[in-house]
Amino acid sequence: MITTDTIVALSTPPGAGAIGVIRLSGDDAIRIANSVFSGKNLLEQDSHTLHFGLIKDGPVVIDEVVVSLFVAPKSYTKENVVEISCHGSNYIIQQIISLLIRKGATAAKPGEFTLRAFLNGSLDLSQAEAVADLISSDSAAAHSVAMNQLRGGFSTELNVLRDQLIHFASMIELELDFAEEDVEFANREQLHELINKISLVLNKLIRSFELGNVIKSGINTVIAGRPNAGKSTLLNALLNEDRAIVSEIAGTTRDTIEEVLNINGINFRLIDTAGIREATDTIEAIGVEKTMQKISQSAVLVYLFDIANLSATEIREDILSLHKPGIAFVAVANKIDLAGDVLPELNLPDGVQVISISAKENQQIEELKQLLYDTAVGDQLSDSHTMVTNIRHVEALQRTQDALSSVQNGLDNPVTSDFLAMDIKLALYQLGTVTGQVTTDDLLENIFSKFCIGK
Amino acid sequence: MITTDTIVALSTPPGAGAIGVIRLSGDDAIRIANSVFSGKNLLEQDSHTLHFGLIKDGPVVIDEVVVSLFVAPKSYTKENVVEISCHGSNYIIQQIISLLIRKGATAAKPGEFTLRAFLNGSLDLSQAEAVADLISSDSAAAHSVAMNQLRGGFSTELNVLRDQLIHFASMIELELDFAEEDVEFANREQLHELINKISLVLNKLIRSFELGNVIKSGINTVIAGRPNAGKSTLLNALLNEDRAIVSEIAGTTRDTIEEVLNINGINFRLIDTAGIREATDTIEAIGVEKTMQKISQSAVLVYLFDIANLSATEIREDILSLHKPGIAFVAVANKIDLAGDVLPELNLPDGVQVISISAKENQQIEELKQLLYDTAVGDQLSDSHTMVTNIRHVEALQRTQDALSSVQNGLDNPVTSDFLAMDIKLALYQLGTVTGQVTTDDLLENIFSKFCIGK
Repeated sequence: MITTDTIVALSTPPGAGAIGVIRLSGDDAIRIANSVFSGKNLLEQDSHTLHFGLIKDGPVVIDEVVVSLFVAPKSYTKENVVEISCHGSNYIIQQIISLLIRKGATAAKPGEFTLRAFLNGSLDLSQAEAVADLISSDSAAAHSVAMNQLRGGFSTELNVLRDQLIHFASMIELELDFAEEDVEFANREQLHELINKISLVLNKLIRSFELGNVIKSGINTVIAGRPNAGKSTLLNALLNEDRAIVSEIAGTTRDTIEEVLNINGINFRLIDTAGIREATDTIEAIGVEKTMQKISQSAVLVYLFDIANLSATEIREDILSLHKPGIAFVAVANKIDLAGDVLPELNLPDGVQVISISAKENQQIEELKQLLYDTAVGDQLSDSHTMVTNIRHVEALQRTQDALSSVQNGLDNPVTSDFLAMDIKLALYQLGTVTGQVTTDDLLENIFSKFCIGK
Repeated sequence: MITTDTIVALSTPPGAGAIGVIRLSGDDAIRIANSVFSGKNLLEQDSHTLHFGLIKDGPVVIDEVVVSLFVAPKSYTKENVVEISCHGSNYIIQQIISLLIRKGATAAKPGEFTLRAFLNGSLDLSQAEAVADLISSDSAAAHSVAMNQLRGGFSTELNVLRDQLIHFASMIELELDFAEEDVEFANREQLHELINKISLVLNKLIRSFELGNVIKSGINTVIAGRPNAGKSTLLNALLNEDRAIVSEIAGTTRDTIEEVLNINGINFRLIDTAGIREATDTIEAIGVEKTMQKISQSAVLVYLFDIANLSATEIREDILSLHKPGIAFVAVANKIDLAGDVLPELNLPDGVQVISISAKENQQIEELKQLLYDTAVGDQLSDSHTMVTNIRHVEALQRTQDALSSVQNGLDNPVTSDFLAMDIKLALYQLGTVTGQVTTDDLLENIFSKFCIGK
């Protein structure tokens, strides 16, 4: 997949707009652009300059454009890069790209510009992956995590660990060279300590994935409860709009309704569900089944109950049947406008938070939002400046951790230096795949094919 | 609507992409961009240069960007222009635009950049309008007409006429100054000739609108005929794909099907219709009614008949009943694969072209395409380098023509110089509204509100 051709693609979203930007990268980028450009001679211009002129196909004027010149290595890809800013007509964009291809450029594959940036050392692999996350980020938290990763925060932390490990690896390699003399250059005590230290950091990073992932894709938050508890009313109150149909009739909601609510920069995917009860018809039965399915996939479960109509025993039974390990649980007493804000003694399991609200009268809704945030995110965001959001990274970190366990075992039940060296090398290899010191074509293909074209 | 604020808008289409371009224009464009840019001091940089850096909101990094600087008057709007090329994430784009607005920029109205380009003399009005046409052009011909208009072809032709008329207007004004002496500075014979010449050119331009308009929006081409003539098969053959459902059963097509076919750079909007006959059920009856409606709105009518099953009398009857003045008519004998390519004597009205094909066997389809092109476009494209595509222009040209008729009348039945001067001035005024020597706020508002934001 790695070529040195000059590649071309539209870098702005498709569709009509004021302008479209076509990007060329490669040795011949400036020569190819110059061959269709009528204006100054682009081959004689400085890097980082802008030039107005015409794109012409023989005598036919295709468009009036502004050309941006980036001369290697002062560009995103470290190759010659030309960006042609043309009128945002699909027809014009197609004409220019096909003209450039006729003049010798090749259509870029998804992510190929960023792949070249990585191959030429502009970015490491986790930074390159952060570019894709950055483009798809749709909340302040997702943006901040991706930007931190793009700016190298994540890589820096890993590289420090890797350097320390490399130091020990080379010491042990040295022991192998002097194997017959039975010397120990690598202090086994210090290695033990280092492995412990690295394990702690890796564990923290691996654990951060759970939060990092939900920050990237949003936190699945299911609102469940008996019919007529006011679930749809609560959804509307949280969103501050009339999204779901509400009525006095139990069983109004059949389909699950999903909406995104941003609390303190984190996206919560709110899922309103059909009320849980013995269903009275088939459609409703399907709805209830869907509800149970949604609950099992949720990160946060909001159990809403009607405090005016349910006994303490019933509430307790509901909570015990819905409460599952691994799913954060928030119990919400609704209709305090009717029943007053007095909760009965519920004697709930540890970790179940309870709050009283009135969805209809908009009472305590802000407090509920804060409770959702505290339950799902808490203070994890503030103390972990570095966060893993990529499943590929967390898997590589996990494999690194496994290799380090083998090293640890080798130290506890002494093995020969060559076995130790092998395990350390494996750990280094796994760590290297995260930032890209170690890559394979398959890995790169897999990462960059998920990019959009033109990046 | 005309302000000197610094305006800001996203200039690339919305949606996620590799990059998005945010454009600022106005006195403070560089100062505002510099206040959120971390990198070189933009206030000290040359025009037409590119600068890499960060956009920061206080300590928070929003994005890594490349800034393009255009220092007044060397820009599209002739004002200071800054283009910020950022990652194409909606979140980032929103953050940057709202930051720039907090720093003093104003959200741009649709077309406001191009409006400023017009007001500052970068473009005349018809050129500015061509920008919108250029962006929406979707065929080679539409593109070429818009590009010719953008490059001033249309304006140049009008301005030559206008200058000649201004010359006479000033001569006649001079006569008014010397009214008491009864002199004639403006040679009435020459004025007569000039008016005739201008009228001829205007007529040609006005007539070109018919073609110009269809080039811009496509030529409505209805395929009609009796059931089972093979209309849907013909549509598929012309498009070279299976677009319409075809069967042996008469009356298969109920809804009208519309598809665009590009012939020699011109878009034909092909409309397949239900077969015309006494309908056997209600849905089909509605279909037939729709067909008749579509025929009345068409520019070209393709009457398709089954040469194997229809007598010469029936064909002739169909053609006479469908043939309407003002609609180009092409009669197409289908199924020559069954019946052989022998047309009966039809004795058709003048101007009705006949061609024999086999839609099923793809015989003579290319010839039919060429016939459609010749019928609808002919050689009008080659000899008219300038074409009117804008309804506003054709109306202004028509009003100019009317005013010139009054001048002509005034010359034929001599009136006093002041009446003559008034009519010439009216003609000049109308001509001026086309290229924008004469404008009103309403006119500008009306034109530029149809633009996309960011242009």
